[in-house]
Amino acid sequence: MADISTTAPLTRASVQAAHAIVAPHIHRTPVVASQTLTTLASTPQADLSSTRFAGRTPAKPRIRLWFKCENLQRIGAFKVRGAFHAVGKLLQEDGWVQDGGKERGVVTHSSGNHAQALALAAKEHGIPAHIIMPSISVPQKIAATRGYGANVVFSGSTAAEREAVAAEVIAETGARLVPPYDHPDIMLGQGTMGLELQEQAAELMSKGSSPYKGSGKGLDAIITPCGGGGMLSGVALSCEGTGIKVFGAEPSYQGADDAKRGFESGERVLSVSSLTVADGLRTPLGKYPWSVIYERKLVESMYSVTEEEIVSAMRLVFERMKMVVEPSACVPLAVALYDEDFRSMVEREAGEEGWDLGIVFSGGNVGADALGKLFGLRE
Amino acid sequence: MADISTTAPLTRASVQAAHAIVAPHIHRTPVVASQTLTTLASTPQADLSSTRFAGRTPAKPRIRLWFKCENLQRIGAFKVRGAFHAVGKLLQEDGWVQDGGKERGVVTHSSGNHAQALALAAKEHGIPAHIIMPSISVPQKIAATRGYGANVVFSGSTAAEREAVAAEVIAETGARLVPPYDHPDIMLGQGTMGLELQEQAAELMSKGSSPYKGSGKGLDAIITPCGGGGMLSGVALSCEGTGIKVFGAEPSYQGADDAKRGFESGERVLSVSSLTVADGLRTPLGKYPWSVIYERKLVESMYSVTEEEIVSAMRLVFERMKMVVEPSACVPLAVALYDEDFRSMVEREAGEEGWDLGIVFSGGNVGADALGKLFGLRE
Repeated sequence: MADISTTAPLTRASVQAAHAIVAPHIHRTPVVASQTLTTLASTPQADLSSTRFAGRTPAKPRIRLWFKCENLQRIGAFKVRGAFHAVGKLLQEDGWVQDGGKERGVVTHSSGNHAQALALAAKEHGIPAHIIMPSISVPQKIAATRGYGANVVFSGSTAAEREAVAAEVIAETGARLVPPYDHPDIMLGQGTMGLELQEQAAELMSKGSSPYKGSGKGLDAIITPCGGGGMLSGVALSCEGTGIKVFGAEPSYQGADDAKRGFESGERVLSVSSLTVADGLRTPLGKYPWSVIYERKLVESMYSVTEEEIVSAMRLVFERMKMVVEPSACVPLAVALYDEDFRSMVEREAGEEGWDLGIVFSGGNVGADALGKLFGLRE
Repeated sequence: MADISTTAPLTRASVQAAHAIVAPHIHRTPVVASQTLTTLASTPQADLSSTRFAGRTPAKPRIRLWFKCENLQRIGAFKVRGAFHAVGKLLQEDGWVQDGGKERGVVTHSSGNHAQALALAAKEHGIPAHIIMPSISVPQKIAATRGYGANVVFSGSTAAEREAVAAEVIAETGARLVPPYDHPDIMLGQGTMGLELQEQAAELMSKGSSPYKGSGKGLDAIITPCGGGGMLSGVALSCEGTGIKVFGAEPSYQGADDAKRGFESGERVLSVSSLTVADGLRTPLGKYPWSVIYERKLVESMYSVTEEEIVSAMRLVFERMKMVVEPSACVPLAVALYDEDFRSMVEREAGEEGWDLGIVFSGGNVGADALGKLFGLRE
């Protein structure tokens, strides 16, 4: 990872510069509309009595949905944006290549999408990648990471165990650490999806080739999942100065709503221990993301949803939108459909005209088997 | 349906005119690239010994794949193109509106995607739709068709029984029949996807924002599924004079490869009785499609694949492309990946430079439960 003192300032212009670096390596993933889900989002919920909002009058928001399909991204998730940007910046760092950095390579600890993303980015630039994975990782993920040519190194499954192994690998190889989210280069890379979403939604609205037209002024708001906060902070930077409001979405299960709680208390929550089905969002917010999301107030507010709401949204995406999305990727849609706090806020803020809301589908890495279990197809 | 004597000639210009009629009502569905599937398609199959090609040397084609995602179309399938075109042309027909046609409505017999497509097109134009469905249809399909406001009329499940009920409905209501594929207006409507695919693939290649660039000259070939032939003939018309070669793909199970057999014998096969998993492709080729596909030689040749090859392709799309596609929609990809007749033809014709091949994903209407069964998740 490039040294912090050398990274670009956290601004929209830096996100644009990041886009120039990553664009040749990634998909400009499609933005799609859905009449069915837009109608659902704009219809008051029928009955709140069996929900956490029992006793309230259902909100009547008007919401037109525009989905950014990062599940169709390379490796099946947005993480390639940050990884290609981080590696691209390393290659530009004074002296890194000249001093043999390309031969020493990069290293990270991850069992998820970041592992495959860094492995791919390193491979395309001819750089070795050392990926530290818990030895209990599922065989498919290990195979997929090796499939991109990475050197997989096993560790125990606690953070301390992984970091100890990372330190050993760094000492032995001289490889540079590329963390999954808590670094400006990663945040700026992930933010590139926000630029594309803004442009693509505006294009669709102006062409009028969708079943709904939108206000014609482009997006009013964007909501993204929030785990470590790399994506949410990057997207917030991509919207700075545009007037587009940015929101974050988390699972509430077992305290995975750490960013929401941080927002409410004014103190970043430093650890999370949740087994939420949204397994990409089990991490606490990082320091740099927090500085953008909370301290600079570039995110309006945070919302959280239950496990049932997440799975229900996932089933709708599968059945009505014909796309495979992982549980973490459905959290923003679940907020838009089921969270009365969010829905009544939109009713109030957007009024009769309603909002054009960008929703990020962050990834699609869920196996057929796991999907079947989530949908209750198997005992 | 507009009277045959009044329909536009079957030419590329008529497909362009159809596009102007349907574009305001449909999605311009995305075209996406996939490095993983392109690599698979361009790698010789490892071992043919347990396949129907045992004894052959695996072909070495170079194929870059560009997928037209009609599974992301409204109602989850391309059928809305033909339905909106047919209804649009009816509205333009001399005297139809003036003579009360809009009040009498439209009628079709279908238990599949055409039923929902016609119901939606009729609803958006404020026209009643009578849909004849076998009484044994799955409840979800009946509910979905009614959900678009259609009047569902039940019949027995043989063609004769359905047609008898259709004749009754027409006698009673004066509604106009809109057949699912065997009519020029339907063919021209479905062909609009071909125009979009040509444009979108060329755009992606010129932007260089995909992991592979293509030849830069646009598509070399397109392959679509073939059931009744409405889509294949329409896409063939959309390519006339462009130099783009067009191929058709069928399941081979229980004689569902009727178009392929017709090509070989020179005689159209008039009936098919197959329970192939590709349930959208169980119908024989229609008369008008045959005239374009075979008699005018606008399709180069037909290929067919086994049930196992279809399910294998479907699993790859699910796991690697993160999209839900119905079995019928996977047949062209199965040809590109597993049919050595097709693959050796591409090796021969495309040589070192390879082909940019457009592949149509025709629809995504498969439930989570059915998908689980196909993938062997349930006993």
